[in-house]
Amino acid sequence: MKINVVESVLKANDAVARENRRRLDAAGVVAVNLMSAPGSGKTLLLEKTIPALAAARCAVLVGDLQTTRDAERLAGIAAQVTQINTGTGCHLTATQVGEGLDSLDLRSIDFLFIENVGNMVCPAAFDLGEHRRAVLLSVPEGDDKVAKYPTLFQPADVILLTKVDLLGVLDYQRSKVYQDLSRINTRAPRIEVSSTTGQGLDRWFAWLKDQRRAQVSDS
Amino acid sequence: MKINVVESVLKANDAVARENRRRLDAAGVVAVNLMSAPGSGKTLLLEKTIPALAAARCAVLVGDLQTTRDAERLAGIAAQVTQINTGTGCHLTATQVGEGLDSLDLRSIDFLFIENVGNMVCPAAFDLGEHRRAVLLSVPEGDDKVAKYPTLFQPADVILLTKVDLLGVLDYQRSKVYQDLSRINTRAPRIEVSSTTGQGLDRWFAWLKDQRRAQVSDS
Repeated sequence: MKINVVESVLKANDAVARENRRRLDAAGVVAVNLMSAPGSGKTLLLEKTIPALAAARCAVLVGDLQTTRDAERLAGIAAQVTQINTGTGCHLTATQVGEGLDSLDLRSIDFLFIENVGNMVCPAAFDLGEHRRAVLLSVPEGDDKVAKYPTLFQPADVILLTKVDLLGVLDYQRSKVYQDLSRINTRAPRIEVSSTTGQGLDRWFAWLKDQRRAQVSDS
Repeated sequence: MKINVVESVLKANDAVARENRRRLDAAGVVAVNLMSAPGSGKTLLLEKTIPALAAARCAVLVGDLQTTRDAERLAGIAAQVTQINTGTGCHLTATQVGEGLDSLDLRSIDFLFIENVGNMVCPAAFDLGEHRRAVLLSVPEGDDKVAKYPTLFQPADVILLTKVDLLGVLDYQRSKVYQDLSRINTRAPRIEVSSTTGQGLDRWFAWLKDQRRAQVSDS
């Protein structure tokens, strides 16, 4: 009974997600869903990423239970920013993203970043209509998280190991992370970045531009 | 409809939670539910805490989607450890904890630590039958998390700011955390700890012993 309800919620969500993707495709926008634990550095990464692309051609939908803090941080950086407050909701839904799309001028952007609620479990189950899933894992979270949260890492299209400037400070074995990933997801490129020092950001920017090029050549 | 289902799930959970609490009370065990984002240091804190109490009188129920890694880390430390794998579940339920209690000899312990799934949203909605809720917030997660996740911090009985050894390394303003807490929860003591350096752990141990004393004098 409970499972049936969950399945029908997911089914309804997926239908809305397909419609979101159709709208994004029609406008020539590539949408990236950023997912991670709270405090992995999603907002700071976007603060560094958007100016390196073309800020005027970027929009962000930001999900949080409460506050407009992330939207405020990004408001001066991206051309269009909309905060979505989920209340007690542990993830964004396709319906919320669809309403977010209504608030944006999709024709004037190339990239839409969807910053999901900080949570390593629930967001992974909900297609929002994005084209790519970027999963962040920050060094201070520890080197044991991939195996513990496989549902997040398995469908990722790119995996960003963030805050690598702390590798020297913390007892952390990257090899453990990559060993776990080799069992769960060998498809996604892995990019080590520090938004503080700038390390690795060029590879991330190049990956994003590749996704945009792939979309344009598909259409 | 969806909300009704959620309410009836919570109602059923609460009934099982009350039964768990009755069993714990009858055995004279104080149960502490540890909640936080992934990688805030729950397991390491328990590795330091249990030997400082009386390891023979401590048990742990450890929740994770997958793996028995945390249980393995704690197996040599606490007298009794049971891993609960939730599969795709984003939090522990009272039923899972009830089954965990079946696996323990409650008469031989004073403290039960329930290490919840790393998640700042969903665990907060589910009473497990615990007596106290300990919420961890690690410094690298950033100083903006209290206002973003009020449903976690509001019902906390104690709030541990963990990894404070990183305060000198990171751009972090404790005052922001305490300012947000002053609006959300003024009741819970706030303890700054580092499981690496040992800083502040004595206050946490003293708080735990106080909870045990309060329970014994109640019964």
